[in-house]
Amino acid sequence: MPDPTDDRLGRLRAAMRTRGVDALLVGPSADLRYLVGYHALPLERLTLLVVPADGPAALVVPELEEPRAVDSGAAAHADLVTWSETEDPIARVVDRLQVAGIDLRGTFALQDRLWTSFTLALQAAIGGASWVPGSSVMRDLRLIKTPAEVEALREVGAAIDAVHAVVPDLLRAGRTEAEVGRDIADRILEDHDEVNFVIVASGPNGASPHHETGDRVLEVGDAVVVDIGGTRAGYCSDSTRDYAIGHLPDGYAELHAVLERAQDLAVDAVRPGAPAEAIDAAARDHITAAGYGERFVHRTGHGIGVEEHEEPWIVAGNDEPVAAGMAFSIEPGIYVPGRYGSRIEDIVVVTDTGVERVNHRPREVVVV
Amino acid sequence: MPDPTDDRLGRLRAAMRTRGVDALLVGPSADLRYLVGYHALPLERLTLLVVPADGPAALVVPELEEPRAVDSGAAAHADLVTWSETEDPIARVVDRLQVAGIDLRGTFALQDRLWTSFTLALQAAIGGASWVPGSSVMRDLRLIKTPAEVEALREVGAAIDAVHAVVPDLLRAGRTEAEVGRDIADRILEDHDEVNFVIVASGPNGASPHHETGDRVLEVGDAVVVDIGGTRAGYCSDSTRDYAIGHLPDGYAELHAVLERAQDLAVDAVRPGAPAEAIDAAARDHITAAGYGERFVHRTGHGIGVEEHEEPWIVAGNDEPVAAGMAFSIEPGIYVPGRYGSRIEDIVVVTDTGVERVNHRPREVVVV
Repeated sequence: MPDPTDDRLGRLRAAMRTRGVDALLVGPSADLRYLVGYHALPLERLTLLVVPADGPAALVVPELEEPRAVDSGAAAHADLVTWSETEDPIARVVDRLQVAGIDLRGTFALQDRLWTSFTLALQAAIGGASWVPGSSVMRDLRLIKTPAEVEALREVGAAIDAVHAVVPDLLRAGRTEAEVGRDIADRILEDHDEVNFVIVASGPNGASPHHETGDRVLEVGDAVVVDIGGTRAGYCSDSTRDYAIGHLPDGYAELHAVLERAQDLAVDAVRPGAPAEAIDAAARDHITAAGYGERFVHRTGHGIGVEEHEEPWIVAGNDEPVAAGMAFSIEPGIYVPGRYGSRIEDIVVVTDTGVERVNHRPREVVVV
Repeated sequence: MPDPTDDRLGRLRAAMRTRGVDALLVGPSADLRYLVGYHALPLERLTLLVVPADGPAALVVPELEEPRAVDSGAAAHADLVTWSETEDPIARVVDRLQVAGIDLRGTFALQDRLWTSFTLALQAAIGGASWVPGSSVMRDLRLIKTPAEVEALREVGAAIDAVHAVVPDLLRAGRTEAEVGRDIADRILEDHDEVNFVIVASGPNGASPHHETGDRVLEVGDAVVVDIGGTRAGYCSDSTRDYAIGHLPDGYAELHAVLERAQDLAVDAVRPGAPAEAIDAAARDHITAAGYGERFVHRTGHGIGVEEHEEPWIVAGNDEPVAAGMAFSIEPGIYVPGRYGSRIEDIVVVTDTGVERVNHRPREVVVV
């Protein structure tokens, strides 16, 4: 449910007028939940929020999903317009734009994750328009978190810290990654509404940054990367810690000391006005100086909020300065193919004077 | 993993040549798994399979996801092309099209669920092209299931039947829908690889066809709609049965008798050459004659295969004849707002002479 003290549609319309966007079209997505509180299913029947820069918003929904839309409270923000199984929903959208007096040769923003099948149908129905990504206007709202949003990130951060606190009880030789992952998912649900992902990457699987879980059986001497996240009250958690079964594998202690220092250096580099790429460089330069530069194959972080991954990107080439209220991960990693991986990740929020971490579990390797 | 005996890329290229499509671009989706066996994460870093009508396919992947792409075996079907965090992946795609000698003013098909942010970036980079939905070529492959695919649907159908067999043990007064739903999800995972959805819609929640689970506590006298599905070996299950706690609510026996008959009539209407809308009408006419026509607010069914919902749509207005090898749901429902809902769903496959159901649980209401 959108924060009632935060006039999101009003702020959105201001952003649209600034950027010359006549209407924003939003399908099932985090943006839809953020704007009107409706958690819609991404299915083949079109659900589309139509927000004109001037004039009332409309939520076009399939008739059979109307009860869910009503229950969400979205009608407080937008007129509900239903379409039945034998109607053309694209025609409903075009009607609504015309009723709002919008020139169909104008500029329309399409939510970034809208299915291309809907985009191509809209482009065919509205031939003379210009199309821009929805993030061109949504980023103005979502990039800087309000105090209530920061508090939500602290709370969901504490919830995922509580899961990492019990991970040592779940990891042991002889269990598979998938078994451990299922137990972790159950623990996440104890204080989250949804599990977003569970990575349990043991031994050589740890060298694949986006490995999830598999049938590999944990063995004594494995390093295990555990990267987990969920959604609680609409906001996402994301935290990574490294564990070892029985004892550390050869070379891991040295590698991890480098990584811990790199993560601290990147967090320390966060302050209002710091370019995103300087934060990335703070971690990367230390890892490179220690001889692991080729093994840190991803950016240092991503923004987080109502989505797990959103702007800002903490990456080389992004010279945009971070600002108070931005929230993002700091998650350097070192990956040694065939042997193991390591990653330490906390979510941080930029404050007026520096930085606040929302994850507080110890960062050293936990040997179980 | 694509069936090695089924030359899917070869069949795809034939469909592309027939329909005048120069290249198909496929992001993370069921189509990507179907074509090259890669189950990619739908994330903000571009993963895109580029299939020219003539010439070798390429899979453009972020560098940090390369290990997952390699593990998937996709390299047997497409050249792997990686891009690093500071490169522009759209430029990589354009390069690949040019290397393949494709005219950039040609016709490009975009997979239906590709994120619009990627579509707009491609359209900006390739200004003179025509764009069509990927389903315009993919439907030729996916609509008619091979014998191996039909066998996979039978096996996953048996797996979901086994879950419905234990649902009576999980439903009882005093438990919440969400608690029951979590237990059902665990049972689905015993013989599926993924849970796709779990609907436990009790009492008045049953009147919302796409209600999932909530905090409502089951009570004696509730009707409960249980609609569940998962993925096993790449193919989806989907089956709905109705239950009641203690005893049937008033009027439910009569309503359900109408629904059982309507579902049978629709299944009986399935044979090669029958128009999809005639199958819908077989259920709808019976429900309407019994006085419940206004309460059957959705189509009779949807195709199923590597996706839960795919073509063909069994709906009024679709006069396309069904053909041997098509697989779809038959799932009429009757919804009484404020009181209860009901739905009976089986997956059927069109045979050379008629129809085969892949779900076999009894269709009457089970009182627990």
